[in-house]
Amino acid sequence: MKIGIFDSGVGGLTVAKEIKTLLPNQPIIYFGDTARTPYGTKSKETLIGYAKEDASFLLDQGADLIVIACHSAASTAADVLKTSLDVPVFEVVTPSIEQALAVTKTKRIGLIGTRATIKSEIYKKKIGFLEPKAKVIGQPCPLLVPLIEEGWLKARETRMIVKKYLRPLKQQNIDTLVLGCTHYPLIKKIIEQKIGKRVTVVDPSLEVAKAVKQYLSDNGDIFTKKAEDKYFVSDIGPATEEIVRCFMGQKIILNKV
Amino acid sequence: MKIGIFDSGVGGLTVAKEIKTLLPNQPIIYFGDTARTPYGTKSKETLIGYAKEDASFLLDQGADLIVIACHSAASTAADVLKTSLDVPVFEVVTPSIEQALAVTKTKRIGLIGTRATIKSEIYKKKIGFLEPKAKVIGQPCPLLVPLIEEGWLKARETRMIVKKYLRPLKQQNIDTLVLGCTHYPLIKKIIEQKIGKRVTVVDPSLEVAKAVKQYLSDNGDIFTKKAEDKYFVSDIGPATEEIVRCFMGQKIILNKV
Repeated sequence: MKIGIFDSGVGGLTVAKEIKTLLPNQPIIYFGDTARTPYGTKSKETLIGYAKEDASFLLDQGADLIVIACHSAASTAADVLKTSLDVPVFEVVTPSIEQALAVTKTKRIGLIGTRATIKSEIYKKKIGFLEPKAKVIGQPCPLLVPLIEEGWLKARETRMIVKKYLRPLKQQNIDTLVLGCTHYPLIKKIIEQKIGKRVTVVDPSLEVAKAVKQYLSDNGDIFTKKAEDKYFVSDIGPATEEIVRCFMGQKIILNKV
Repeated sequence: MKIGIFDSGVGGLTVAKEIKTLLPNQPIIYFGDTARTPYGTKSKETLIGYAKEDASFLLDQGADLIVIACHSAASTAADVLKTSLDVPVFEVVTPSIEQALAVTKTKRIGLIGTRATIKSEIYKKKIGFLEPKAKVIGQPCPLLVPLIEEGWLKARETRMIVKKYLRPLKQQNIDTLVLGCTHYPLIKKIIEQKIGKRVTVVDPSLEVAKAVKQYLSDNGDIFTKKAEDKYFVSDIGPATEEIVRCFMGQKIILNKV
């Protein structure tokens, strides 16, 4: 099975990277919607339209399975895609919710993400369904993606802003924190430092990669010989290639469609 | 004449506001492409396509004159629109260049903006054509728009980041600074403080409004009775209405198209 991954832009490469780590031979087809990025500031209705188009593109390219890497799209459009597509649809929300519930002791779970992700309240709804005693405290962090895309991964300003955003979550005594945006793993260390040692950080990029591996393993469909990966984007902007190198740790050939 | 104004999103409202101040009765039709915002991270080719669509929409709505409020679109797509449209096309770059050349004494002009605007080198080319001795020093400031849209107009972090971005321009001894992005007038005071009193700040929103007023005056077409304005956006995201209120100082009715 070829794994199709889509994202609002290049952030989903953190998901692609985790999948490649767990399934080094499995072919992936990546699509980043860089012509319309970001998704996190847009409405649910608009995101559903974009997500349908993104998934269709991946299926046209031969994907046998879809991974929604973008939290904003996963939070707003996953149900629509799961109902309407004939292939398995994985997304970053469900496996990270399972992991958060597995590790939390106090049932006080923090979530950081874009405005679209937090506003969707998908984590609240799904966690509340599985564990009515759990409390989800969401905090939109709109500046973290621009800071990461600016390459300020260790800057003093980034540390200050992370601290400011996390303060309300610390005050709420969470014991688990979900990184609800594909970019955040790049500043995971700062987030861990600022939120403190008593909080377990859940990285959805890793959790969805584990879920995909489990599915392929159950279906006896893990490639043993290396196959070719393809990376598509809808635009190559002034900094796209630099940001991609930062995310993947190496140069990736991007095909503009 | 009805004034059509387009922008990548809501930032162009600073231009709309200056036009309404100088021409309070003239009807304006505003279009903000919030479904694809921002433009500043995207390629020239993509921006030309978007700008053509935006202008077409305004003409369909009855605009007699087009104002490109978005610096990224003005820097990359103005020539294409000026050649292909049958109506007058104004944009934020030309009048601010004229103003910068009028006020500079040392001919060392700083420019801050998005990556797309700085990369276009349009200011360098146009200023170099008019005044070969002038030197333009560009500085992309990708974090300022997100900081402004987060509402952190007076935050310590905003001050620090402005200072960091302006440092190379100070070191280059500029005497004039062009605010090459529609959002920047909202933090004009911080920018003026950080760049220092010896530098004259040019606000393109005001300059383009003056140019439009001059044109209408020359054509004897300034409305003396109040006419209705219309504001259109391609998406209403989780924070759009709040940001619009911040830009306009009042609630504006947005029509989603």
